[in-house]
Amino acid sequence: MNCGADRAVTRGGDDVTANDTGGGEFDPYRVALAGLLRCCEPPVPEQVARFVAGLGARGAWEAIAGRSAPKSVAQVVDARLGALDAAALTARAEADLRSAAAAGAVVLGPDDLEWPAECFMGLDHVRPHDRCVHAAVPLALYRRGDRWPVTRRGSAAVVGSRSATPYGVRVASDLGAGLADRGVTVVSGAAFGVDAAAHRGALHAGTAAGARECPSGVTVAVLACGIDRAYPVAHRLLLDAATACGSVVSEYPPGAVPARHRFLVRNRLIAAFGEATVVVEAGRRSGSLNTATTAGGLSRQVLAVPGPVSSAMSVGCHDLIRDQKASLVTDAGDVVGLLGPLQPAAPVHRGGSRPTDGLDLLTARVHEALPARGTATVDEISVEAGLSMREVLGALATLHLDGLAVKHDGGWGRCAV
Amino acid sequence: MNCGADRAVTRGGDDVTANDTGGGEFDPYRVALAGLLRCCEPPVPEQVARFVAGLGARGAWEAIAGRSAPKSVAQVVDARLGALDAAALTARAEADLRSAAAAGAVVLGPDDLEWPAECFMGLDHVRPHDRCVHAAVPLALYRRGDRWPVTRRGSAAVVGSRSATPYGVRVASDLGAGLADRGVTVVSGAAFGVDAAAHRGALHAGTAAGARECPSGVTVAVLACGIDRAYPVAHRLLLDAATACGSVVSEYPPGAVPARHRFLVRNRLIAAFGEATVVVEAGRRSGSLNTATTAGGLSRQVLAVPGPVSSAMSVGCHDLIRDQKASLVTDAGDVVGLLGPLQPAAPVHRGGSRPTDGLDLLTARVHEALPARGTATVDEISVEAGLSMREVLGALATLHLDGLAVKHDGGWGRCAV
Repeated sequence: MNCGADRAVTRGGDDVTANDTGGGEFDPYRVALAGLLRCCEPPVPEQVARFVAGLGARGAWEAIAGRSAPKSVAQVVDARLGALDAAALTARAEADLRSAAAAGAVVLGPDDLEWPAECFMGLDHVRPHDRCVHAAVPLALYRRGDRWPVTRRGSAAVVGSRSATPYGVRVASDLGAGLADRGVTVVSGAAFGVDAAAHRGALHAGTAAGARECPSGVTVAVLACGIDRAYPVAHRLLLDAATACGSVVSEYPPGAVPARHRFLVRNRLIAAFGEATVVVEAGRRSGSLNTATTAGGLSRQVLAVPGPVSSAMSVGCHDLIRDQKASLVTDAGDVVGLLGPLQPAAPVHRGGSRPTDGLDLLTARVHEALPARGTATVDEISVEAGLSMREVLGALATLHLDGLAVKHDGGWGRCAV
Repeated sequence: MNCGADRAVTRGGDDVTANDTGGGEFDPYRVALAGLLRCCEPPVPEQVARFVAGLGARGAWEAIAGRSAPKSVAQVVDARLGALDAAALTARAEADLRSAAAAGAVVLGPDDLEWPAECFMGLDHVRPHDRCVHAAVPLALYRRGDRWPVTRRGSAAVVGSRSATPYGVRVASDLGAGLADRGVTVVSGAAFGVDAAAHRGALHAGTAAGARECPSGVTVAVLACGIDRAYPVAHRLLLDAATACGSVVSEYPPGAVPARHRFLVRNRLIAAFGEATVVVEAGRRSGSLNTATTAGGLSRQVLAVPGPVSSAMSVGCHDLIRDQKASLVTDAGDVVGLLGPLQPAAPVHRGGSRPTDGLDLLTARVHEALPARGTATVDEISVEAGLSMREVLGALATLHLDGLAVKHDGGWGRCAV
C-alpha cells in the first residue's frame, strides 16, 4: 500500500490541509480548483485540460473567471459561468470550499504532493465507453479522510452489481477483508451490493499495514455526486467509516446530484486508482463492466470472480472471462498473486498427496494387483497385473522401498498407507 | 452428430454384428480381437501396438497365441498367456466373446467400417498423466448398443466429479440435455455424479437428430471394467438406457474389475471420442482433470463450467480456466458455439437495450438534465448540463428525433420511454 500523508502539502511545502487559510480568507489555489470543478462537467474536454495544464489551476481560473480564456475553452465553461462576474465566481468557489469543509473535505489538485498523478497516467487516452469522448484526468478532487492511493501499486478496485446476490455480497466482503489483511487498499463506489460489501470487508479486517491509528484496512469510496452528500443515504455511516480509515473522494462540486451519467464518468477514477479491478458480480448490463473496460484500457489487470452459471448476476463476470477480457480469480490470494510481489507469495495449496501418487504406471499396476488383504505370489501378481515376472519383481522392489508393499510368508501384500 | 451404422460391417463387407458366425464357430477376426484384449493391459505398449498394426489383428494373434511373436512383444503378453497353448487361448477368447454376447456386446476393431479411427488420431503421442508412458490407441473395443461417434465431430465429452454437488448435477444434466437437443452426442463414464447426470440429461432430451427410433439424445458410456459388468451396480438401468440410445464401450475383457488405474487409462478414450471435453465440477484431485489434460494433449477443446468460488467441487474447473488450460462455458449453447458450425449459430442474446443506450455523452447529459416531470427552458437545461446553448439545442434536436424529448409550453421535457 502506498497511501498519502495525513496532511495535504503542496509541492511548494505549504500546509494546505484546511481549505481556509485563516482569517476567513481562502488559499487562492484551492479557490481556483473549486472554481474549475464548478464550471466544467467531467470528463473535461481536451482543450480545457490542456488550458489548465498549461497555465496551472490559478492562472487558468483567473483567465476563465476574468472571461479572458480562449474561445475553445469559453465555449465549454460559459454555460456554467452564467452571467456571474469574477467576484461572484470566486464567492461561489469559496462557498463550495466552505460546504466541503463543513463535510470535512478538502480539495486537492495536481500541485499537491499526494496528488495521485501516477494513478491517472493514461486516462486521457482511454475510451472507457462509447458514450465518453475520452476519460480525462480530473482537474481536482474533493477528499474526506487522509488516505488514498498516491500510486496504484498495492491497491485494487472491487466493483460489481448494486443488486448483488447473497453470494456476491459474501464474496465481495471476503475479498475486501482478504485484500485489507494483505495490506492492499480497497477502492470502490458507495453503492449497495458489492461496493458496500467490499468496503465493509476491508473495514472489518483485523490488521492493516501502514494504518496504525486505524485497526481496519484502508478503503476508498469514489462518489458520483458532491462530497457533502451521502448517496445512498443509507450509507452515511459507511462513508464516515471509510473517511476515518481511508477516504471518500469526488470530482463533483458540493451539492452535485448523482445523475446517471456521472456514475459512468466516475467509474474511470475507480479503475485508475487500482492496480487491478476485480468484478465480483455483474449482470450483462452492469456499470461495473464499464469500470472493467476502463481498467483494461489503462492496461491495469482486469479480474473477475466466477459464480453459479445459473445466476444472472454472474453473467457479466463469465462474459469477461470467456472473452478473455478478464482473468479468473477466486479470492484475495489470487488477486494479490497477480498484483505482483507486494507481499511474499503465499504457497499454492494443491491439495494433499497420496503415497501412490508418484508411481509410474507399471509400478502402480503392480500395486493395484497386490491383494487388499493377505498376500499373493509373484506369479499371481504377474497374471493379475498383466506384466512379466521381471517387471513385477522390479516394481515390487520399488514398492518395498517406498513402504507400499511388504513380503510375508513367501508372498507379497500391501502396506496400509 | 456422426454416429455409426446400426450393424457392424468390416471393411471387407462382412456382416459381423454377431460375434458368433453361426454353428458355434466364431469369426476368427473377433476371436483375435478378444484374444488381444485379454493378453495385454491397456494402454498397450508401443511395441505391441506396432506389432498388431503391422500384422493385423488375426496375424498378430496367431503369432502371439502360437508363441512366435518377437521377444519384445512376448515380454509384454507372456504373463497373461500363462501356460496356455494356442487352443486354450482361443477357447478363452471365445469364452470372452460368449460373455460379451450374453451382455449384448460385440467386439470391434480397426477393420470395422465404424471403427472410430479418426477419434483416436494422436492418442499414441499423448502423455495424459505422469503415470502413463503414452495413451495408446485401443487394440479393440467391446460395445453394447449401436451408436458411437465414428468421428469426433459433433460429440462432446462431459466429465466431472463423482461427488458432484446438487449444483453440478443440475449443470451436467442441463448440459447433457442441451447438447442432445442440438444433436451433439454426449460421451462420459458411468460414475455417480456428473457422468450419470450428463447421460440422464441426454436421455431425457426431447429430440435427437439422426436417431429416429430413439426419442432421446445419443449418449455413450465408456467403462473402466468389463462390458458385462455394471459398475456401479446402481447404474445398471442407466447403462441399459445408454445401450438403447447410444452405446456402452469398454476395452477390457469381460469380467475385468474396475481397478483404480483403469479409470485413468479409460479417461483417454472419453477425451478421444469428444471434439471437446467439458469439465462440469472437479475437485483439485478429480480424475476428470486427467481427462481434460488428455483432451488438451489431443488438441481437442477443453472447456470448464465455473461455479461458486466457495465450492471445493469447482476448484478444479477454476484452476483450469485460471491457468488457461480451459475455456469458460456456461451452457450447451456455449459448447456448441465452440464446436463450430455443426448447427446454424444461435443468436447471442446480450440482454435488452434502452432507448438512451445509443446516445453520445453530450446528448445523454442533456437527456439527464431534462426534468423528470414538467419542462425546463433551454437556459435551465444548459446550466444543469453544463453545456452551451448551442450544444443543448443540438442535443435536444437529436433527442426529439429519437422520441426522447418533447417540447411543450416553451420548455422541454422527457418522453416516457
